[in-house]
Formats: sequence, C-alpha cells, structure tokens
Amino acid sequence: MNTKNRRLFNQTAKESQLVEQEVRRDDIGFGTKLTDSHSRLINQDGSFNIVRVNGTLWDRLNIYNRLITMSWVQFLSWLMIFYVTANTLFAGIYMLADPGMLKAADEKEIYGPFWKCFFFSSQTLTTVGYGHISPDSFLTSSIAAFESMMGLLAFALATGLLYGRFSRPIAHIRFSKQAVFAPYLDVNAWMFRIINCRANQLINLEVSVSMSRLEPKPDGTLSRKYYGLTLERNKVSFFPTNWTLVHPITDKSPLYGCTPEDLEQSDTEFLVSVQALDDTFVQSVHSRFSYRYDEVLWGRKFRPMFDGKQQTQVVKIDLNQLDDTEDAELN
Amino acid sequence: MNTKNRRLFNQTAKESQLVEQEVRRDDIGFGTKLTDSHSRLINQDGSFNIVRVNGTLWDRLNIYNRLITMSWVQFLSWLMIFYVTANTLFAGIYMLADPGMLKAADEKEIYGPFWKCFFFSSQTLTTVGYGHISPDSFLTSSIAAFESMMGLLAFALATGLLYGRFSRPIAHIRFSKQAVFAPYLDVNAWMFRIINCRANQLINLEVSVSMSRLEPKPDGTLSRKYYGLTLERNKVSFFPTNWTLVHPITDKSPLYGCTPEDLEQSDTEFLVSVQALDDTFVQSVHSRFSYRYDEVLWGRKFRPMFDGKQQTQVVKIDLNQLDDTEDAELN
Amino acid sequence: MNTKNRRLFNQTAKESQLVEQEVRRDDIGFGTKLTDSHSRLINQDGSFNIVRVNGTLWDRLNIYNRLITMSWVQFLSWLMIFYVTANTLFAGIYMLADPGMLKAADEKEIYGPFWKCFFFSSQTLTTVGYGHISPDSFLTSSIAAFESMMGLLAFALATGLLYGRFSRPIAHIRFSKQAVFAPYLDVNAWMFRIINCRANQLINLEVSVSMSRLEPKPDGTLSRKYYGLTLERNKVSFFPTNWTLVHPITDKSPLYGCTPEDLEQSDTEFLVSVQALDDTFVQSVHSRFSYRYDEVLWGRKFRPMFDGKQQTQVVKIDLNQLDDTEDAELN
Amino acid sequence: MNTKNRRLFNQTAKESQLVEQEVRRDDIGFGTKLTDSHSRLINQDGSFNIVRVNGTLWDRLNIYNRLITMSWVQFLSWLMIFYVTANTLFAGIYMLADPGMLKAADEKEIYGPFWKCFFFSSQTLTTVGYGHISPDSFLTSSIAAFESMMGLLAFALATGLLYGRFSRPIAHIRFSKQAVFAPYLDVNAWMFRIINCRANQLINLEVSVSMSRLEPKPDGTLSRKYYGLTLERNKVSFFPTNWTLVHPITDKSPLYGCTPEDLEQSDTEFLVSVQALDDTFVQSVHSRFSYRYDEVLWGRKFRPMFDGKQQTQVVKIDLNQLDDTEDAELN
Repeated sequence: MNTKNRRLFNQTAKESQLVEQEVRRDDIGFGTKLTDSHSRLINQDGSFNIVRVNGTLWDRLNIYNRLITMSWVQFLSWLMIFYVTANTLFAGIYMLADPGMLKAADEKEIYGPFWKCFFFSSQTLTTVGYGHISPDSFLTSSIAAFESMMGLLAFALATGLLYGRFSRPIAHIRFSKQAVFAPYLDVNAWMFRIINCRANQLINLEVSVSMSRLEPKPDGTLSRKYYGLTLERNKVSFFPTNWTLVHPITDKSPLYGCTPEDLEQSDTEFLVSVQALDDTFVQSVHSRFSYRYDEVLWGRKFRPMFDGKQQTQVVKIDLNQLDDTEDAELN
Repeated sequence: MNTKNRRLFNQTAKESQLVEQEVRRDDIGFGTKLTDSHSRLINQDGSFNIVRVNGTLWDRLNIYNRLITMSWVQFLSWLMIFYVTANTLFAGIYMLADPGMLKAADEKEIYGPFWKCFFFSSQTLTTVGYGHISPDSFLTSSIAAFESMMGLLAFALATGLLYGRFSRPIAHIRFSKQAVFAPYLDVNAWMFRIINCRANQLINLEVSVSMSRLEPKPDGTLSRKYYGLTLERNKVSFFPTNWTLVHPITDKSPLYGCTPEDLEQSDTEFLVSVQALDDTFVQSVHSRFSYRYDEVLWGRKFRPMFDGKQQTQVVKIDLNQLDDTEDAELN
Repeated sequence: MNTKNRRLFNQTAKESQLVEQEVRRDDIGFGTKLTDSHSRLINQDGSFNIVRVNGTLWDRLNIYNRLITMSWVQFLSWLMIFYVTANTLFAGIYMLADPGMLKAADEKEIYGPFWKCFFFSSQTLTTVGYGHISPDSFLTSSIAAFESMMGLLAFALATGLLYGRFSRPIAHIRFSKQAVFAPYLDVNAWMFRIINCRANQLINLEVSVSMSRLEPKPDGTLSRKYYGLTLERNKVSFFPTNWTLVHPITDKSPLYGCTPEDLEQSDTEFLVSVQALDDTFVQSVHSRFSYRYDEVLWGRKFRPMFDGKQQTQVVKIDLNQLDDTEDAELN
Repeated sequence: MNTKNRRLFNQTAKESQLVEQEVRRDDIGFGTKLTDSHSRLINQDGSFNIVRVNGTLWDRLNIYNRLITMSWVQFLSWLMIFYVTANTLFAGIYMLADPGMLKAADEKEIYGPFWKCFFFSSQTLTTVGYGHISPDSFLTSSIAAFESMMGLLAFALATGLLYGRFSRPIAHIRFSKQAVFAPYLDVNAWMFRIINCRANQLINLEVSVSMSRLEPKPDGTLSRKYYGLTLERNKVSFFPTNWTLVHPITDKSPLYGCTPEDLEQSDTEFLVSVQALDDTFVQSVHSRFSYRYDEVLWGRKFRPMFDGKQQTQVVKIDLNQLDDTEDAELN
C-alpha cells in the first residue's frame, strides 16, 4: 500500500475481538516477556530485579536518593570522608598559596605548615574561626572567603539531607517470612500476615496482591500472565495489631485446583503491595513484598498472636510470633 | 490427604456462603478477639490501647517521631540536656588530651582547667569560636575540628526537627466531651459535636463513625463486631463554625431498639475518625476520638453555640459552649 | 418515659421521611442559622466571616501560621525586632553579671559598657564570635554558652520559617471582580472568569460553585439554604490561559426565573472554590472567592482575552483584560 | 426588555440541546480559539506555548520557582554572584563608615582598606569571624551586627533552596522521540514508548492522551477540537521496564480513516500527560509531552528493548534503544 494513500483502518473489521481481549488482560507493568524462571520479579526487600543501562551519569548516580536511602552508618561515613577530603584539598591550596601567609598567633608551629593549613581550613569550613590562625594576604583571604561560603552551603546541604532522611515516609511493615495454604471456613485459602513494626500508627491500610505465572501460548512458547487475587478484606481503617490477609480459593480463583507442582512448574510468584497513611505526618507510605512458590507452606496455618483473654488493660503483641505456624488439615 | 496429591479446592462446594458472609462483615482493623470489656479500643487522645513487644531497638525508640510529637517543654529540655552532655563529654576528652594544650589568651584561669575545656567545647560546638581559648596542639586541634563538624550536624538536625515540629499537619479539632441520644426530627439520633480550635481553616472535612460491641457467637463465646454508622451528613466543604454529627436511629441502625443496659452489657464503643485539609499548607490532617457507652448522655440535646441573630457583622462562636447540653424528651 | 425503660426507636414509624429529606439537603458547612443579611459568608480574600472566642492562648496565637502567612515586610520586621530585643535582653543580663568580665582586646571602650555587652551578645547570638570581646569569668562564659545555643536554635527556626514561607503551596488565581448574567447559546448563564497570575503552571483544575440564599420556612422565619450550581464544565487538565466558568440557567437551575430583586431580597451569595495541582512541586492548591448579589452584572458578557488570530508563534494574554465586559442582550 | 423586569429564563425552551452538546464536548483547558497552525500547544519540554503579560512584578519574577527549577550551574553562579555583590556592598558601607574603625591585629595592611573591609565583610556574613579584623567603633559594630544577621538569614534561605531543589518531585521519564502508526493485533494503532531514566522507582503510573486538531465549523471558520484517546492500557502498578502505550484505531477512534495529509492539514497534535508516585518519597510526579503530526512515523514499529531470553539473573534494559523502530506493514 502506498504511504500517501494509506488510511488508518482495517478494511474488513470495524471492531476487534483481539483488542477487546487485550484490554481485559491483567498487567501490572512487567510485561509478558519475562520468562526466565530463575529470577524473581520483586526481591524480598521490595526492589525490582531489573537493571537499566546507558542512563545519563546524573541519573545513574542519583546522588540525592542514594544519600537519603543509604544506612545511617554509610551516610555518616560519607560525611566524614567528605569533611576530611575537603579540608585536605583546601589545605593543599593554602600550601600552594604560601602557608606563611596564614599567620598563627603563636608561631611555635608544633605541627608543621600542612597541619596549620589543614586546621585553618577546618576552622573556616565550619565557620568556627577561632582566629588564632588567620589569613594574612590577599590570596589566602580570598580563598578563605570562598571556603567559608562553601562550608555554609555544604552544611546547608547536610541539613537538608538529615531532614530528608528523617522525614522520609517509610513504613516498617514486616511480612511473615512465608505464606501458607490453610483451611479457611469451608474452603482453603492462601494467606500471609503483616504487622507494623514502628511505634507510629498506620491508618487507611490497603493491600493488593497479584499472582504472576508462566503459561504456554497457543504456539507453545511461554508467556508471563498476571492475575489480581481477590482478598476477603483488603482495607482497614486502623492497623494497631497484626493482620492476616486471606485469598479464599473458590472456583473464581486462578489458584483453584492447583497442586504444589503446578506452582513450581509455572514459576508462580505472589506480588504484594501495601499502601497506608502514616499517622504522625499524614504521609502516604508504600511497601512491596513477594512470595515465590517455594515460600508458600502447604497445610499450615498461622498461630494467633494474642488470645484476647489477657487480664491487663492493654493488649500486648509479640512481634517475634509473626512467623509462627502450625499444621492444619486442608479442606 | 497426601501433600503431593492435594489440590486447592473443596471437593463439593464451588462457592462458599461462609466466605461471602465474611467478606460482608465490617472490620476496621481491631479483629474479633478483643473481648476484654475493661479496656477501650481508642483512648480519648486518639491512641490505641495496644502495645507491641520485641520490636527492634530502633523501631521501639522511634526517635524522630518522639522528638516531633513530644511537648515543647520536653523537646527544649532534651536539647538543653544534649547540649550540656555533649559539652561535658568533649570537655572530658580535652582534659584527657591535656588541657594545657588549650591556650587561653589570658591565663588567669579563674575557672580552672575543666571549665576552660567545657567553655572551649561550647564555643566550638556552636561554632562561635571567640578564639580567646584556642587549640594549641595537633591532638586538641583534631578534636576541635571533629567537634565543630559534629556541632554543625547537630544543629542541622535541630533545624530539621524544629521545622518538622512546626510544619507537621495537626488538626486541633475538639470533640464534645460526651455524645448524646437526642430527639431528631420525628425519630431519635446519636449525636456529637466538633469544632476547629485553631485559627487556620479546615476544608473538605469528612467524618466516619464506627460502633464496636461484643456479641455472643452461636457457641456462646463473645466476639467483637463492628458496624459503620450512617451519618445524616458526613462531608462539608468548609468548617468555620461548630458541626453536629447526627446518626439517625431508624430501623436500619444497629442501635435501633437498644436500651442503656444493652450498651453497657455489650461494652459498646463509638469510634470516630475525622479527616480534613488544612487550608494553610493544603495538607491532610486526621483526628480520632472515641465515646464509650458511659460517655453518652440519654435524653439530652446540644445547646446552639450561636443564635444567628447577632447584630454584628461577624459571627462569634464561644469554644467554651461546645459541651453545653440541655434536657430533651426522646421520641 | 423512664430512662431505664427507654429504647431507641420511634414506636410508630420505622422509616422517617423527614430524615430522608434532611439527608438530601445541600450544606457546605455554614449551617442554616446564618440569617443576618448584612454580612457575607466568604470575604473576597477567601477568609470566613466568623470568629471563634475562648480558644487556648496557643491556638489563638497560632504563631507558626501567622509567621508563614504574614507579608514579607511584616515577617522581616518581626525578625529584626526579635534580634534587637534578644540582644538587648542578653546585654542586660551581661550588665547584671558584671560587664567588666567581658574582656575587650582594646579597652578604649569608646562605646561604653552597655554597647560592649550588646555587641558581644550579637556576636554570640549569630556565632560570628570575632573574639575581640570575650567572656572572662565563669558566669559570663556560661551565659555566652547558653546564648550561642539559643542563637543557633533561633536561626534554625528562621531557616524553617523561610523555607515554609517559600514552599507553601499558594495559587495566585485571580477572579474577575464581577460575575455576569450573560446570554449563552440559546439560554442565559451565570458566568465568571479566572486566570492564573503566577508563572508556574496549574494542572488538574477543578471548580465548584455553591449558591447560598435566605428562604422563608413554613413558620415564616428565614433559613439559609445552599445549592450546588452545575457548571457546563468544572474540570480542565491544563490552565495556561483564562477560563470562563459557566452555569447555564435551564429549568433545573435554582436561579431559573429569578429577577435582580429576588437575589437582593434573599441575600444571595455565590461561593466559589477552586482546587488544582501546582506543577512545580506537585502540591495541591486551593482558592476561595465569593460574589454577592451586588457583584453580579446583568446583561453583560466577558470580552475575549485573546483573539486566536495573532501571527506570532506564542499566544499572549493580558492579565489586565480579565475584568473587561461588554453589553449583551439576555435571551 | 427592561432590566428590572428581566427574569432568568428563555421564554420558550426549558431545556437546551445546545447546552447538552457543549457539556459533552471535550476540552482540556486550551479553549477552541487557538487556530494558528504554526505553533504547538505543548512544547517538548512540557511547557505551554502561551505567555501572560501585565502580571505583577512579584508574580512575573516568581523568584522561588526560578531558583528551584534553574540548572545547578545557574543556581551556584547566582549564589556566587550574590555573595560577591553582598560583600562588595557591605565593604562599601564600611568604607563610608571609616575603614580605620576596623581594627586589624596586624596593621601591615598589605591589601589596602577596601579589601580589608571586603574580607571583614565576608568573615561577618559567613559568621566565620576570625577576629584578626574586628569592628572598633559603635557604627562599624552596628553594621557588623546587622550584617551577621543578614548572613545567617541568607544562608537559611540557601538551605531551604538547596533542600527544595533536591526534594522536588521530578520524574525523569523519557518519551520516544517519535510516535508510530504500527500494526497491532488485527488492526492498526498509534503508539509511543516511555521509560523511567532515574534509578528510583515509579509506581501507580497513569497515562492520558488527548488529540487536538482544527476542524471547520458550519460557518467555515476553523475551531480547535479535543479528543481523549482510549488506550489499550493506561495504568500500571509498577514501572521497572519500558512501557509502550497503545491507542488501537478501531471505528470508535477519532483517527479512524485518517491519512497523513489529514493529520497535517488539521494541525493534529497528540498531548500526553503522565502521572505517577515516586517510590522514595511517595510523592506525586507529573510529566507532559507532545507529538505533532510530523513526529509520528507511518508504518514503523518499536523494536523490543529486551528479549526475555537473557541467561542472567537480572534483566537489563538499554535506555539507548528507546527510539529504535523498524518497518512494519500496516493492516
């Protein structure tokens, strides 16, 4: 067909059954081509098993996010390294500019010209400026003026980073290490259990669970399919205790009639996404988790975390009991 | 049944009536096992009556949230304590390193070596650095360089905390101390009243009320049930005056036909959750409250907080009248 | 009826027509009792015409919100006043503690002991600490240590306030000074016009309009009623140009058949509420406005703000034309 | 009709067909009058092609937003310029006040009175305050007290700006340079492709696409019309890989039966709006893009960015392949 003459329609069909079908297909953003059964989609820390290459240096460094999300030990180490490096650098510059132009009140100089420059630099960078060492030439004064400004900006940045680290909305929701297939009322159900580990409250909690598995296409190749799993309850207003999420396996469930072998062969993975409001700052928090087929126990059920018959005024919940299960006969 | 052969379905039933029932059951996150009638679910300050044990130290300390939510008096006291402790600590370190190496311009030393170290430390930590005392050896210079950096970080933290405390979205919504059962149109209603105590406006206010009570299960044990209470109006765009929330007791209400004794025996608690937008920062704010059966008055109604007939241009509302009720004959 | 015997139901009626009616009544949060026709509900700056008394001192002061919302001139003046007051205060304290214990390098003391104390205080509060004046006793050293810490906290606060002032989400939406009744297609319509005055973009704009007027109750007293006005379009994704909001007056409109006299007698007020997302920080912004009956023009229409026939690549809109109207024959 | 007698209704019609039609018309906020076919509505950087004039100086300057959105190089240059200017200004003030009243410990004055003032100013502004130069009169002390306060405020501002720049929610979503008309199942489709360039994750992605084109009105003049384009899928929970957005051209599509010439003559533009949640800070992010008729390829399809058959544990995606297309026969 000539480009100039082509028109955007299929000559015969006005509607397309295939399009309708495709629109109804569940997809949570991984696509259908991830067919390698050796890798999981979501790691247990909530990160994705996918790497992007050839991004710009800036995007790859992603400095701010790294500084915000790294551990406190790492963060403070980087601050120390930065501080020592900056002082060494400026000490070098003062050495080049003539250390004699940094006048020390007491010229004993018991620690030599480099360290004089180094400590002068640290006193300038932090703006402590005792003055027992002071710049005594145009050049050293200029460098010191520049350094003190850099120092203030650097600590301005540190202020922002510290605030960002502390105020960043993070839910510390703990997921039971394993999910279970347990009897539930008169059927069976797939279940897992979560608890809020932090002292601050979460409200308006909402959980969604998807199942991903490989299914053969008509031409025999494998394609990854996604199913949303209906939960018996997927929202609560408050989350003060533990919460067991239950997907009842009725005939509407994609798990209906599955065997352990089915799950393994189809590389089944359960993808969990939790969303809530942190009560202290009324910020949204998110949490992801994933259970692979080999992290689901058959015929086990969760042991209650509190019995409701405690005689104290306040109900106690032991976080260590989150993963406790016991044998249960499946229906 | 052999594990290897088990399949996830109930042989006989394809659908489960029990599952359907469970899905429809109201639950706001406390579960059904809290049957102790001596404790309330939500305290009047909005916190929950539940304690978690065995969390990690970090989660239990939850430093940032505590520092943000504690009172201003406590917060400033902690800052003072931290400041004095840090200076004492560093003074100790300078003492160990040799106080003679802190050179004072005027060696009268009227306040002894410890205080010289202490004040030097405070001048370094705050970066005020007068210089009348200055480090005079490699060791003291190094400690001072480290201390001044710590000082800046500490005050960077304080900056973040102060900002966090001030900018934290808090609604100061006052709830009437008691709810009432009052006549309402041609029926009765359960009512309570709220008002915004802060000068900044709240908009898009939304209120939801749940009722929790113990009900006997078929086997005679008690189980906690939850009911959402339909309000005659649960949203307003603006909240400049007081607002009386009304749950009319028609035959659809779970309170229909209840007596005061019923409420007491079933340990009834009314759980209130308010959500709004603070107009200054367009932030979400939340507020919780709870009325137990003994905090509900029978046959009382709220007195109007303003009469609408004032002759001034501006309507005045007296916050002290929020709890005022008067006798009213129930329908 | 005896309290102990009373049960929560109306003996005869199971359902209540009055309750159903009340549920359907529009109310935006002002209540029905505001019947004074001399005051408006919403002032043109978006504030409410209602005052609360007897709040706590803290709630009434509402310091943070005031410091955030006051003008820049006021804010900087308060900072200056605070700075001078704090220094005067501390200068007084040093005077009491003995100004001779502040040792000046150069004892000419050309500006007397009070100013020596004052400038020492300012050098301590800002942590500039030149050291040409320095504390020379235990007492003055302690005060200085305390003052330098206070200084850092005060400036930490100022940092937070400055950030809060700048980052606060404010929409600078300008409303046309007057609304109009203009012909619209084959009917008439109530219209007003808005434009974004700031250079940053607003997206997902949503507008809602309520009308409030006094209506006689069956017993002859006046009661305030509220009606939501249906807009021909109340949402747009982008807001790069001006936008004319149109309420067509068909027979479903509460304005159908009204005369100017009707509006005046019923103290009609049009309450406008705008909500959008600021594109720079992806923050929600809100804006309120109100038109009273005497701010609505009859038989005028808005003049277009641009003609769409400009020959430049970039469309220009003149903010000064926002209020321009011209005569138009009503249908 | 006399003003006093006019009533708000059209004498004959109670309902208006024209109003109904207008309500159903799509409009995304640009209006119908933008008929110049030489300009696009949305530039490829997401900004709008519209300029407002006669705003207030403050709104036009829009300082905060500019300082937040400008490049880092520009931002740091402005900081340096501000710092040097402020010091020069204060140096001038000290010169006027008498540079002799700034006492230098060492009066060699090897760099002259102006530079003495300049460096004293820089040491005051940054609060480094060595003290080797110190104010020696009432006047210079007062100026220095004022300057040090200004210095702290300026750096408080810089702290806020740096934090604002870093914490500002920006999605770095890359759009394929060109959209394509490609075969899709048994029909054709308009497609484009996006990818997240940053290392932090985006979740709950939602995309909406509008098409804008000029259409002749009954009277022959051109009027701009808007159509929402239905996407085969417009939401995903996760966005770890690339995502191809697909608008299938069935007979419901406004593109049905179009030729390349049609698109050109009607000045067709595809407006894309993306909305997501940044996972690190759980902030909303937005992104806009636009494809004009000459940025859409006919009969090309996108090449897959990964083949799903990699033997490593981690899937790799090369950002450079985003724009790769290959020939494809249209249906």
